[in-house]
Amino acid sequence: MVKVGIVGGTGYTGVELLRLLAQHPQAEVVVITSRSEAGLPVADMYPNLRGHYDGLAFSVPDTQTLAKCDVVFFATPHGVAHALAGELLDAGTKVIDLSADFRLQDADEWAKWYGQPHGAPELLKEAVYGLPEVNRELIKNARLIAVPGCYPTATQLGFLPLLEAGLADTSVLIADCKSGVSGAGRGASVGSLYAETSESMKAYAVKGHRHLPEIRQGLSRAAGKEVGLTFVPHLTPMIRGIHSTLYATVVDRSVDLQALFEKRYANEPFVDVMPAGSHPETRSVRGANVCRIAVHRPQDGDLVVVLSVIDNLVKGASGQAVQNMNILFGLDERFGLSHAGMLP
Amino acid sequence: MVKVGIVGGTGYTGVELLRLLAQHPQAEVVVITSRSEAGLPVADMYPNLRGHYDGLAFSVPDTQTLAKCDVVFFATPHGVAHALAGELLDAGTKVIDLSADFRLQDADEWAKWYGQPHGAPELLKEAVYGLPEVNRELIKNARLIAVPGCYPTATQLGFLPLLEAGLADTSVLIADCKSGVSGAGRGASVGSLYAETSESMKAYAVKGHRHLPEIRQGLSRAAGKEVGLTFVPHLTPMIRGIHSTLYATVVDRSVDLQALFEKRYANEPFVDVMPAGSHPETRSVRGANVCRIAVHRPQDGDLVVVLSVIDNLVKGASGQAVQNMNILFGLDERFGLSHAGMLP
Amino acid sequence: MVKVGIVGGTGYTGVELLRLLAQHPQAEVVVITSRSEAGLPVADMYPNLRGHYDGLAFSVPDTQTLAKCDVVFFATPHGVAHALAGELLDAGTKVIDLSADFRLQDADEWAKWYGQPHGAPELLKEAVYGLPEVNRELIKNARLIAVPGCYPTATQLGFLPLLEAGLADTSVLIADCKSGVSGAGRGASVGSLYAETSESMKAYAVKGHRHLPEIRQGLSRAAGKEVGLTFVPHLTPMIRGIHSTLYATVVDRSVDLQALFEKRYANEPFVDVMPAGSHPETRSVRGANVCRIAVHRPQDGDLVVVLSVIDNLVKGASGQAVQNMNILFGLDERFGLSHAGMLP
Amino acid sequence: MVKVGIVGGTGYTGVELLRLLAQHPQAEVVVITSRSEAGLPVADMYPNLRGHYDGLAFSVPDTQTLAKCDVVFFATPHGVAHALAGELLDAGTKVIDLSADFRLQDADEWAKWYGQPHGAPELLKEAVYGLPEVNRELIKNARLIAVPGCYPTATQLGFLPLLEAGLADTSVLIADCKSGVSGAGRGASVGSLYAETSESMKAYAVKGHRHLPEIRQGLSRAAGKEVGLTFVPHLTPMIRGIHSTLYATVVDRSVDLQALFEKRYANEPFVDVMPAGSHPETRSVRGANVCRIAVHRPQDGDLVVVLSVIDNLVKGASGQAVQNMNILFGLDERFGLSHAGMLP
Repeated sequence: MVKVGIVGGTGYTGVELLRLLAQHPQAEVVVITSRSEAGLPVADMYPNLRGHYDGLAFSVPDTQTLAKCDVVFFATPHGVAHALAGELLDAGTKVIDLSADFRLQDADEWAKWYGQPHGAPELLKEAVYGLPEVNRELIKNARLIAVPGCYPTATQLGFLPLLEAGLADTSVLIADCKSGVSGAGRGASVGSLYAETSESMKAYAVKGHRHLPEIRQGLSRAAGKEVGLTFVPHLTPMIRGIHSTLYATVVDRSVDLQALFEKRYANEPFVDVMPAGSHPETRSVRGANVCRIAVHRPQDGDLVVVLSVIDNLVKGASGQAVQNMNILFGLDERFGLSHAGMLP
Repeated sequence: MVKVGIVGGTGYTGVELLRLLAQHPQAEVVVITSRSEAGLPVADMYPNLRGHYDGLAFSVPDTQTLAKCDVVFFATPHGVAHALAGELLDAGTKVIDLSADFRLQDADEWAKWYGQPHGAPELLKEAVYGLPEVNRELIKNARLIAVPGCYPTATQLGFLPLLEAGLADTSVLIADCKSGVSGAGRGASVGSLYAETSESMKAYAVKGHRHLPEIRQGLSRAAGKEVGLTFVPHLTPMIRGIHSTLYATVVDRSVDLQALFEKRYANEPFVDVMPAGSHPETRSVRGANVCRIAVHRPQDGDLVVVLSVIDNLVKGASGQAVQNMNILFGLDERFGLSHAGMLP
Repeated sequence: MVKVGIVGGTGYTGVELLRLLAQHPQAEVVVITSRSEAGLPVADMYPNLRGHYDGLAFSVPDTQTLAKCDVVFFATPHGVAHALAGELLDAGTKVIDLSADFRLQDADEWAKWYGQPHGAPELLKEAVYGLPEVNRELIKNARLIAVPGCYPTATQLGFLPLLEAGLADTSVLIADCKSGVSGAGRGASVGSLYAETSESMKAYAVKGHRHLPEIRQGLSRAAGKEVGLTFVPHLTPMIRGIHSTLYATVVDRSVDLQALFEKRYANEPFVDVMPAGSHPETRSVRGANVCRIAVHRPQDGDLVVVLSVIDNLVKGASGQAVQNMNILFGLDERFGLSHAGMLP
Repeated sequence: MVKVGIVGGTGYTGVELLRLLAQHPQAEVVVITSRSEAGLPVADMYPNLRGHYDGLAFSVPDTQTLAKCDVVFFATPHGVAHALAGELLDAGTKVIDLSADFRLQDADEWAKWYGQPHGAPELLKEAVYGLPEVNRELIKNARLIAVPGCYPTATQLGFLPLLEAGLADTSVLIADCKSGVSGAGRGASVGSLYAETSESMKAYAVKGHRHLPEIRQGLSRAAGKEVGLTFVPHLTPMIRGIHSTLYATVVDRSVDLQALFEKRYANEPFVDVMPAGSHPETRSVRGANVCRIAVHRPQDGDLVVVLSVIDNLVKGASGQAVQNMNILFGLDERFGLSHAGMLP
C-alpha cells in the first residue's frame, strides 16, 4: 500500500486526486494539507467524498509528516513545490508535482513566464516530465515528476505522431484549444463566475499563455528541432474538458496518417485513436483518464487536422498524476483509473 | 459471475448500466438488445465505453438468448417488459425492470395513467418494488423487481422517516421536485433540445404526472393510510440530478428530526443524512448511487422541509437497479457502486 | 429628458440599467459612479455597451454632481443608500433604490436581518415600496422609492390575487423559489463560480433568507393580517430567471381562480396571466420586464399552485426600477421596457 | 410602413425575426406561414411574444397573400425559396431569403453540397449576397437577397480586411469556428438534445461543411483569386453565438493591422473593431446585430489571429436580414437593430 500525501488539497486537482485515489486498490491518502482549512474534514469541503475519507482532515503542512509518505502530490499554485520538494526528496519521499514548477527545463524561461525567479533550479536536471507516452521509462526511476499541464497534454499527444515521424512542416503549427472553466481553478475570481462564463465563448491570452513554452518544449523535443507554434486558448462554458484542434501541413501526402496514429499509440492504455472520420467529444472522457484522438485531412489537402480531447482534471492533471504514481511504484498503470467516462 | 442481459440498451439508463457494470467485479454483460441498432458495437454508440466492451454489440431481442442470462434488465419504454417478463421468469431468469411496468400494484391505476391496459396483471402480485431501504428482504427472494422511478426514489426516501414515525400531517404533503433534462430520455424531442432547455426553468405536468400515483402508493404504505400529495416537477437546466424539496407539517414539535433521520438510515449504504443545517447539492451525487438528505424546520415552526438529492440515472435508475441485483444475488451491495460522485 | 444618475454601476443591476436606459426615449444617463473603477469608460467594462455610451465613464461618487440629476438610482450593496439618500432628497433629486435599504418598514427588523443598525430610519416613513401593481398611486408622488427584491417581486405578484380576495389559508403559505446565479451579484465568490454552480441544484438559506421579512411584509399587507410564510430559495444553473412555485390552501373551492387572476392584472402592462393549464418558462421573460403567471389546482383539490416567473435583473431589479421612474415622471410606463423577451 | 411576410416562421430564425420586427418603427408583419402550425397564434408557440403580436397567427402558405407584402422573408429549409421566390418577384414583392438557396453563384456547386438540383438557377444572376459590408450598393437595388450564413458572416468579416489589402498568403487560410447549438435549428434531433450537448465540445463535419463553399466564394471574391480554406466547425454548449478564430500568414509584417481593420469598418454601423489586445466574447453580442472583431499577431510573428464573434441568430441570420430590408427600403439601417447585447 503506497502511502500518499497531498499538499494543497483544496483546489479542483486536489479533490480529483481524492476521488481517484478512493478507488485505488493499493494507495492510501494519509495526509492532506491546507493552511487555510486546517482541521476541516475533507468531506466537509467536498461532500461527494462523504463516506470515502471519514478519518481524513486537512492539516497544516509539515515536512516531517509529509516525509513519512512514500509519495507526495503537490496540487498547489506555482512556487510552492519549489520550496518543499528538495526537502522531501532528501528524506526519500517521491514527489509528483501537478503545478508548473518543474515542467520547463530552462529556469530562465520559467522565470520569464511566471514572473519570479525559479526557486529550485538545482532540481531541474532530475525532474522528469511526466508524460508517460513519451517518458515512461524515465518515470519508472524518477524521484521528482512534473505532471504536464492540461493544454500541453492534449496538444502534445495530438501532434506527437506527426512530429516524431518528421511529417509536419514544423515552422507553422497551430493549436486552437478550448477549455472548460475548471481549468481556471477554484479561486474566487469574477472572470470564472457562472454569470460571466456561461453561454459565452472567448479566446484569451492570445498574446502568450504560460502553457506555450511548455508545449513548444515538448514538440521541439519530438521534432528534434525548434518548432514554430501558435497557441490560442479559449474559455468554453463547460466545467471539464479540453478540445485541442491542431493544424499542421504535411510534407508527404502519401503517408497513411490513420495507421501512423494507431501504431504510435497501440500499446498506450490511455490514448484512444478513434476510427477514421471520427469527431471525439470531450464528454466521452469526462471523469476518465483518457486522451481520445482523431486525425483528418480535409478535402485530401496538405493540411492535417488533429482533434484531441481530454478531461483537464484527469488526463490533464490528477489522473495523469496517479498514472505516474502507478508507473513509479511498479503498479498496474490502470489502478484507480480503469473506469469509463461519464456520458451523458 | 452473474450473466447479465439488457433489453433496450440505447437510452440513457442503458448506457449508465453499462458504465456501472463495467466496474462490477462479479457481473458480466453478455447480451444487450436493440432492434433499431442491431449489429452496432455499443462503443460505437457510446464512445465513453470504448475499451470497456469491445466484444459487445446490440442484437435483435431474442427470448432464448436472453433466457440464458441470470438476470435481464429492462431499460425500455413502458409496455415492453409486460410482454417479455413472464417468459423469462418461466425460464428461470430474474427480471429487473427499470420501466414503470410493474411499479403500481393496481393494474387499473396503471392503465389510467399510462393510457393502455396493463399487459401482465398476473405478475403484479409477485413484483417487488425495488426500493432497498424499504424492501431489502423481499428483494432477496424476488424474481421480478420493479425499480422505482427517479422522482419517487428521492421523494420517498425524504418523506419515509416522518411518515413511518407518524410525525407528519398526511393530508397535505408537498413535493416540489427539480429534475435534469436526462430524465426525459434520449428520444429526439423539441422540448429537450439544448436551445429549449438551457438557461431556463419551468414546472410541467402540474395537473398530474405519472410518478404521482407511484409516490402516493409508497408514501401511503409508509404512513399506513392514504396520503394527500401534491407533486410539482420542474425541468432544470442540467443533465443529471434530482432535487426534491419536501414540505410537511409535523404533529409533534418536540421530536428530534435530525436524530430520527440519522437513525432511520444508519445502516443504509446509499442514503446519507447530512449534518443539521446542510443543503445537499445534486452534484455531490453526480454519477454516484447515493441519496443525500438534509432535514430542516425553518424558524422552528411546524413546517418541516426535507431536501433530498439523487442522480436520476444512478440512484434514480441504473445504480439502484444494480443495487437490487447485488441484493438479489447475495453479493456485496456496493459492488459496482462504490465510487464517489464527480465534483466539480 | 430625465437626467439620470447611477450610484454603483459596476454590478449586474448597474449594467442592466444601462442596457435598458440606452433604449429609453426620454431618459439620459449623465453620471455613473464607482469608486474602484473611476475613470474607466463603461463600455470598457461592459463591451455589450460599446457604441451606446461612448462618452460615459465611471466617476468618483460626488453628491453635488449627483444632485444635478432628476433621479438617482442606487445599484449598491445595502447600507450605501442609507448614507446618501437624505442629502439627495434635500437637494430635490428623486431616489430610486435597488438595494434593500428602504424595503422594510421596520428599522429594527431591518437591523436584525442585515446585521447592522438602520442608517436612515427617519426616511422610512416616506419611502414607497416600488411594486407598481400595488403602489402605483403612491409611486407617482414619491421622492424615495424602494425597488422590491427579485424573489419578493415574483412571489408577491403570484400570491396577491389570492390574499387580497381572502381566499387563502394565510397560516401556511409556501414559496419554493428557484433563482439563476446572477442573483448572487458580480462579486468574486467561490460559491458563484461556473465550476461550482453549473450542472447542479441546491437549496440555500433554508433557515432564513433576507427576502423572507420583505415578502412577509408584503403578503401581510395584502392579507390584512400576519401570514405564516415558508420561503425556500434554490440556486439554479442559469444566469437569469426566477421561478417561484407557490403553494396555498384555498378556503373556497368554488371560486374561478383563473378569472380572479386575470381580472386582478387586467390593466397591468407587465403582468401576464397565462391561459389555464400553462407552465411559464423563465426564458419567456429573459431580458424583459414581465412577470408571467399561471395558476393551477392539481387534482381539483384544495391546494393552489401558482407559477410565477420573472427575469431577476429586469422585473426583479433594473426593469422595475425604470418602470418606477416612468411612473414617477409621468412618462409612458413602457418606455425603455417595451421589448420582447429573448427566446431562445 | 413596410408590409412584411414570413414564410416558415416556426424555427429560431422565424421567432428572432418576430422579436426584432416587434420593435421596428416602420415594418409590420402581416402574414406568417407554417403549414404544420396553421391557425396557431404565434404567441402560443413563442410565449415571449405574448402582448406583441396578438392578432397574428400562422397561416397556410399562399402566394397570393404573400404577394401583397412589400417583402417576404424565407426562414425555411433549403429548397423552399427556390420554388416560391420567382412567383413573388414576378408579383413585385421583394424576397429576402435566410436559407442557403441563393448564396452560391454556381448552381452546380450548390447541387453538389445540398444533394439536389438547384431549383431556380435562372434567378442566380440577380440574387445579391446580402453582406452589407461588401454589397450595400447592390442591396439597395436588389429584388432578391441571399442572407449569408452564420459561419460565413463571422468568418468573412474577420478575413476581409486582410484579403482586400492583399496582405495574406491566400493558399492557407484556417477558420476554426465555434457555434452555439441553436445553429442546428429547432428540429427534434438526438444530436441537439441538452443531455447530448451540454458540458461537452466537439468538432463536426471536418470533412466538409455546407458553409465551406460559401465562405470560399466570398473570400475568393475579396482576394481576387481562389483561396485555400480549411474550415472546422465546432459545437459548443451555448444557445447562441459564433466565435470564429481565424489564422492567416501575413506577407508584409510592417502593416499596422489594427489601423487597417479600423479603417475598413469605420463607417459600418454593425461591425465593431475592438482595441488592440482585446478578446471579444460572444455574450457581448447576444441578441444584438453586431460583429465584434479583434486582430492579433502573437509573438509578433507572421501568423495573424483574428477573433470574430456574432450572435448566429442576429447578425448571423435574422438581424442581418432586417438590416438588408432596411437598406432595400431606404430606411435607417439601424431600425429594429439599435439595442445593446444582453450581458450577463
